[in-house]
Amino acid sequence: MILLKNGLIVTQDRDRRIFRGDVLIDGDRIERIGKEINEKADQAIDCTGDIIAPGMINTHGHVSMAIMRSSADDLHLHDFLDRTFAMDAKRTREDVYWGSMLGILEMIRSGTTSFVDLYYWEDEVAKAVKDTGIRGFLAWATLDEEFTTQKGNPLSNAEKFIKAHSGMDRIYPMVGIQGVYVASKETWLDAKEIALAHGTMTHFHLSETRKEVYEHQAKTGKRPAEWLDDIGFFGDESLAAHGVWLTVNEIRRLAKNGVKVSHNPTSNMKLATGGYAPLPEMFREGVTVSLGTDGCATNNNLDMMEEMKFAAIMHKAHRWDATVVPAQRALDMATIDGAKALRMEKEIGSIEEGKKADIIILDGRVPEAIPITEETVVPNMVYSMRGDAVKHSIIEGNVVMRDRKVVFDGETILKRSQELGAQLIS
Amino acid sequence: MILLKNGLIVTQDRDRRIFRGDVLIDGDRIERIGKEINEKADQAIDCTGDIIAPGMINTHGHVSMAIMRSSADDLHLHDFLDRTFAMDAKRTREDVYWGSMLGILEMIRSGTTSFVDLYYWEDEVAKAVKDTGIRGFLAWATLDEEFTTQKGNPLSNAEKFIKAHSGMDRIYPMVGIQGVYVASKETWLDAKEIALAHGTMTHFHLSETRKEVYEHQAKTGKRPAEWLDDIGFFGDESLAAHGVWLTVNEIRRLAKNGVKVSHNPTSNMKLATGGYAPLPEMFREGVTVSLGTDGCATNNNLDMMEEMKFAAIMHKAHRWDATVVPAQRALDMATIDGAKALRMEKEIGSIEEGKKADIIILDGRVPEAIPITEETVVPNMVYSMRGDAVKHSIIEGNVVMRDRKVVFDGETILKRSQELGAQLIS
Repeated sequence: MILLKNGLIVTQDRDRRIFRGDVLIDGDRIERIGKEINEKADQAIDCTGDIIAPGMINTHGHVSMAIMRSSADDLHLHDFLDRTFAMDAKRTREDVYWGSMLGILEMIRSGTTSFVDLYYWEDEVAKAVKDTGIRGFLAWATLDEEFTTQKGNPLSNAEKFIKAHSGMDRIYPMVGIQGVYVASKETWLDAKEIALAHGTMTHFHLSETRKEVYEHQAKTGKRPAEWLDDIGFFGDESLAAHGVWLTVNEIRRLAKNGVKVSHNPTSNMKLATGGYAPLPEMFREGVTVSLGTDGCATNNNLDMMEEMKFAAIMHKAHRWDATVVPAQRALDMATIDGAKALRMEKEIGSIEEGKKADIIILDGRVPEAIPITEETVVPNMVYSMRGDAVKHSIIEGNVVMRDRKVVFDGETILKRSQELGAQLIS
Repeated sequence: MILLKNGLIVTQDRDRRIFRGDVLIDGDRIERIGKEINEKADQAIDCTGDIIAPGMINTHGHVSMAIMRSSADDLHLHDFLDRTFAMDAKRTREDVYWGSMLGILEMIRSGTTSFVDLYYWEDEVAKAVKDTGIRGFLAWATLDEEFTTQKGNPLSNAEKFIKAHSGMDRIYPMVGIQGVYVASKETWLDAKEIALAHGTMTHFHLSETRKEVYEHQAKTGKRPAEWLDDIGFFGDESLAAHGVWLTVNEIRRLAKNGVKVSHNPTSNMKLATGGYAPLPEMFREGVTVSLGTDGCATNNNLDMMEEMKFAAIMHKAHRWDATVVPAQRALDMATIDGAKALRMEKEIGSIEEGKKADIIILDGRVPEAIPITEETVVPNMVYSMRGDAVKHSIIEGNVVMRDRKVVFDGETILKRSQELGAQLIS
């Protein structure tokens, strides 16, 4: 049992309660929350002056690309794609493993306790999840065979991956689909069938760029979200990434089918994909909108605290309305709405009795957190504090970082990923 | 003498050279830079694996408002102003001093070595500059007497402040003007006269909001920048903040007169002032554009590393062009162009022999910095790393932070600003 003593608890429960108190963890679950808990625990962590919050959930990325960080910036999209595809083709399984270790190290250090990944060689990413203690939702990317560099059929690879990793601790295998530009109707529907057969989800890029949308429309007469609805792909198990170039009609189709969206503001802005994901309309129509960093080739970091700030302020600027995406909503997107995106809202995303113990403790005595009160703590987290305020991280009841020291071998990760990364991008 | 050994030096000199080497500091100046310097120094700092860069220059803010952080977020502009003006009226000299101490602590910890401030009671801010070791360009805000809550005439206050602080170490008193909405032609011209008489600069808000621009146009028939040019206010000593709502014609007038602009992307986005400062046009016309965080009521932090990222990506998104404001340009705005904004480019803003030793050393072994090469170091600094990567800070040849420990009493700052801040915003 672990007892967190005397912190400012930002519960993210239904009432968004914030109060000073204690949290008792028993095994992998939150046992009790209260003003004062006097229980003999194996480990007590004094949280005086600190903030106790749910771990953040990053709902879209390509974690192993951390090793390709800052290697393709400030380029027009076609130049960017040429450059990253060339590097992708050179990658080895070792690169993917150490890139994932680097990305996960960065995520844990900045408060993320769950992440969604879309890539190939997800078995290497799964190894990194196992070796670090984070929670990983891993979608093996499928696409038509003519477009892939994967050995073997991507759909078979995905299914094999799911079978091999079902029921493993903190690993949730999913089916990925790259996007409408490289996947036929058959591939989309086969991917869905595999997901349903194994009780898991699909995760895919949707309407990220104008090019994607207008080329698909020219080819099929339909916009991507209309087409995916019409072919019968969409369902409660669908998690779409980006969703930038969506019409209100398409948003209604997402809502009707229970499709979830991962919003990636930093990546969208940096790639200059144009347009701003229509968040107010998605909120209005009842679409679950969560937050993702995307990969390090386009962000270039994995800091969800920064992502909350970008999400909140980019829409204010775009809509000329400072009340759009307030701080509380940004924190919701990074926590409880991330859990909803993964149909895991009964398990993670908030600090409530009976839920998994995925908890971060932030230093409330950094200058960026001051003044700290029950009213300022959420805007401070969203607008002012950085990922480095995260002192401790607990995932599935295990302390994976204590006083910013991770329990696995961080030094070797930095060393190996520097060697392999410098080689890869040279 | 201080010897920085074996770091990756991002010089920001004219050729933007980046190389591994040593930096020798003698007194307040950079004595020598080279691949290897073997000199017996009083203090040697091993920078292996680290980045040696010029300290950043924050060219617009209201530092003492750090104590009002996160107290007026997600509000329409008029509600925001009502709330902050009400708090402002309650402020004491003690609040201003401790707020400044809090803001300066935050700035030093995130790599800023020089800052520009626009507020009243600048003598309290000057005390904080003295007590911390940072470099401060302090503009006492003037405005028409009918609008001020200052005791005494604001112009006289400003002049008195300048006289009392001229020639002091690291303190550069300037004349501030709040903006066209509260200052008559006479006030603007008197402010300029005081600045010229004392060989210093003017610093003022310019065309931040639509309201400001269109109300001024309704009243005078001219847009603010046209009007300020026509009344003869503009000069080489003018440093304007924001410059959002500018026409190309106005930009040409700024360029012609040598007016400098401090761009504040985060504040502009968060306040939803609408519009995006026309950076590409300012660059094209030759206006010196630097970077500022604005105050903590509107940002809500003072992290120039985050500000570089916002500056780079907001314009990409707005222009649908990923090549706009590349990483190198963002770093320039935060360093050498900040020095130019203050007419101090021979003294600060880059690592060059003979210049003041205002230097930061960043940890190149945080995950966000990896992979690190001569090619990735600048995009890593702009797009991926955070202010917490700053390990050491040297200002005017004095180590003011070593291994993230400041040489002054940081604990008392946090304690006092928490007490006073919580009281002020309650």
